Amino acid sequence: MSWIVPAIAPPCAEAFRRALQRQAELTKPPGSLGRLEQLAARLAAMQASWRPSLDRVWISVFAADHGVAEEGVSAYPPSVTREMGRVFVAGGAAISVLARQIGAVLEVVDAGVAEPLASPGIIDARAGSGTANFTRAAAMSASQRDRALAAGAEAVMRARRYGAQLFIGGEMGIANTTSAAALACALLGVGPDRLAGPGTGLDGAGIRHKCEVIETALRLHGEALCDPADILRRLGGFEIAALTGAYLTAAAASIPVLVDGFIATVAALLAVRMQPACADWFLYAHRSAEPGHRLVLEALGGEPLIDLGMRLGEGSGAAVAVPLLRAACALHNEMATFAEAGVSGG
Amino acid sequence: MSWIVPAIAPPCAEAFRRALQRQAELTKPPGSLGRLEQLAARLAAMQASWRPSLDRVWISVFAADHGVAEEGVSAYPPSVTREMGRVFVAGGAAISVLARQIGAVLEVVDAGVAEPLASPGIIDARAGSGTANFTRAAAMSASQRDRALAAGAEAVMRARRYGAQLFIGGEMGIANTTSAAALACALLGVGPDRLAGPGTGLDGAGIRHKCEVIETALRLHGEALCDPADILRRLGGFEIAALTGAYLTAAAASIPVLVDGFIATVAALLAVRMQPACADWFLYAHRSAEPGHRLVLEALGGEPLIDLGMRLGEGSGAAVAVPLLRAACALHNEMATFAEAGVSGG
Repeated sequence: MSWIVPAIAPPCAEAFRRALQRQAELTKPPGSLGRLEQLAARLAAMQASWRPSLDRVWISVFAADHGVAEEGVSAYPPSVTREMGRVFVAGGAAISVLARQIGAVLEVVDAGVAEPLASPGIIDARAGSGTANFTRAAAMSASQRDRALAAGAEAVMRARRYGAQLFIGGEMGIANTTSAAALACALLGVGPDRLAGPGTGLDGAGIRHKCEVIETALRLHGEALCDPADILRRLGGFEIAALTGAYLTAAAASIPVLVDGFIATVAALLAVRMQPACADWFLYAHRSAEPGHRLVLEALGGEPLIDLGMRLGEGSGAAVAVPLLRAACALHNEMATFAEAGVSGG
Repeated sequence: MSWIVPAIAPPCAEAFRRALQRQAELTKPPGSLGRLEQLAARLAAMQASWRPSLDRVWISVFAADHGVAEEGVSAYPPSVTREMGRVFVAGGAAISVLARQIGAVLEVVDAGVAEPLASPGIIDARAGSGTANFTRAAAMSASQRDRALAAGAEAVMRARRYGAQLFIGGEMGIANTTSAAALACALLGVGPDRLAGPGTGLDGAGIRHKCEVIETALRLHGEALCDPADILRRLGGFEIAALTGAYLTAAAASIPVLVDGFIATVAALLAVRMQPACADWFLYAHRSAEPGHRLVLEALGGEPLIDLGMRLGEGSGAAVAVPLLRAACALHNEMATFAEAGVSGG
């Protein structure tokens, strides 16, 4: 049974218009809250509410392994995917700390780690035991891809039952910047030298090798790289497919999405190529230090909220940016209008 | 009795070194938290603690009027300074909302509004009934300047008694971007065309007029504009002097300062010119949309945390940025090390 791209409705135009009107009436010079004004209005539109709120934030982190790791494209051994999965649940990873700090629900999903994470705190939604090495074959079968897309959709269904007002997807998978860069090359028609970067910490020689590995894959799959779902199947990872499925499903469920860094943004680009209407539901958290992120953000017209040189993944950049969106909502909801306060307008 | 610039000790170098060492041991690729790593280490050094914390944040907003407002350099009438002072206390201003959201103490100080704010919620530390029009005379006398500097110092003493771990200064004063731009022109030796901007909403003709007003003032005060304390006296405002006094006193009291936007950064530049050692105690919250802010930040080597096109003042940009610093602290304090988590290093 193949995964079906959902239908997606636009955010509420009337709520957007009303929110902008309210912004013009608040006790501040027009436009002086900068991008926070537009962000409040977009959230109002997505929540079809004149009082947007982000009290309930949901974070799903998808972990999976990558066959291409055997080409030596990461500074860390593949065993780290599995080890970090446990750190997420134990509460010691960056995303664990940040989720606590912002009061978000955090769940960890095994989307296809090489050896099952199999821990009480981890959701089993495995599409396989790591992908195949995409320099030699397609990374996954069509049914594996659809299983991974569904893993993301299921996460959003859990978020929806919780009443999530914002969905954040994170990822963990040794070698997944190589997969994300390869996907972006195929989607944007650009060479790997513009998309492959240091990832977790490659040096210059390591990046050159990573580019060669991606070149090899692009040559192997060649003409077959046209349809986004097939590009995902050939070059993707299970956690990237899960993010794509989650983003499409969140948009279909009218839940705003805060997209994290490089890998998450490539998943967002896949989602937009599969169903352009989902773009209206995406906000972009940060500009990663991974140099390829810029190009992918540009392709999506995404303007990140922060630019602090982060490059960790896990959803960490998005979690750090949540308070900025909450500030936008609080200002929108709680500031007095000129009329209420009896202040002279400009 | 003239105000005495305090002696200032540097942050703790040993705490800084230890904090960077801890960052290298946390379960993440080295450097992958970007600027959050350095920020945590700087806060650790300023607090001389290996667990920096920003639970107790103090915000003082200083309000004052400007004689130069009579030259028609603002989009709003001067009465708005007084009106907004009351909105701050009533809880409907941007900074009121943001202070609540981040759980900060907010106090409003009348540093010299034309007509006294005289309200139970407002601290009376008036250095005068607005400054003189600095296109015709010095904005204030030496004793008024010293009174305003002391108003800032007194605010920091209150913050210190509270146990503040971070000090934020905000400002409100119709025409104060004109004063701040004039001060920056004198401090940086640059023409007003590079420092005067729209403020609360001037159009192109309004900005040209504002430049002419500043040119007039710079010609009038001419050669006398050399010593920073005298530049402050001739071209400043009471709230700007209060910010300068607060920043110097916070640095002397080893309290980290989060500097807000254009006007606050000009006050920080004055503080650094009066006592260069205070620079180590300053963090910069955001890049304002006010175009002159860039130049003043560059002069201080300040790298703002966010760039969201805000230009409201009141300390609002700093309040919005506080959660980013808290995220840096939480990550630093609560993440597991590779050794604790049993994860393979890179």
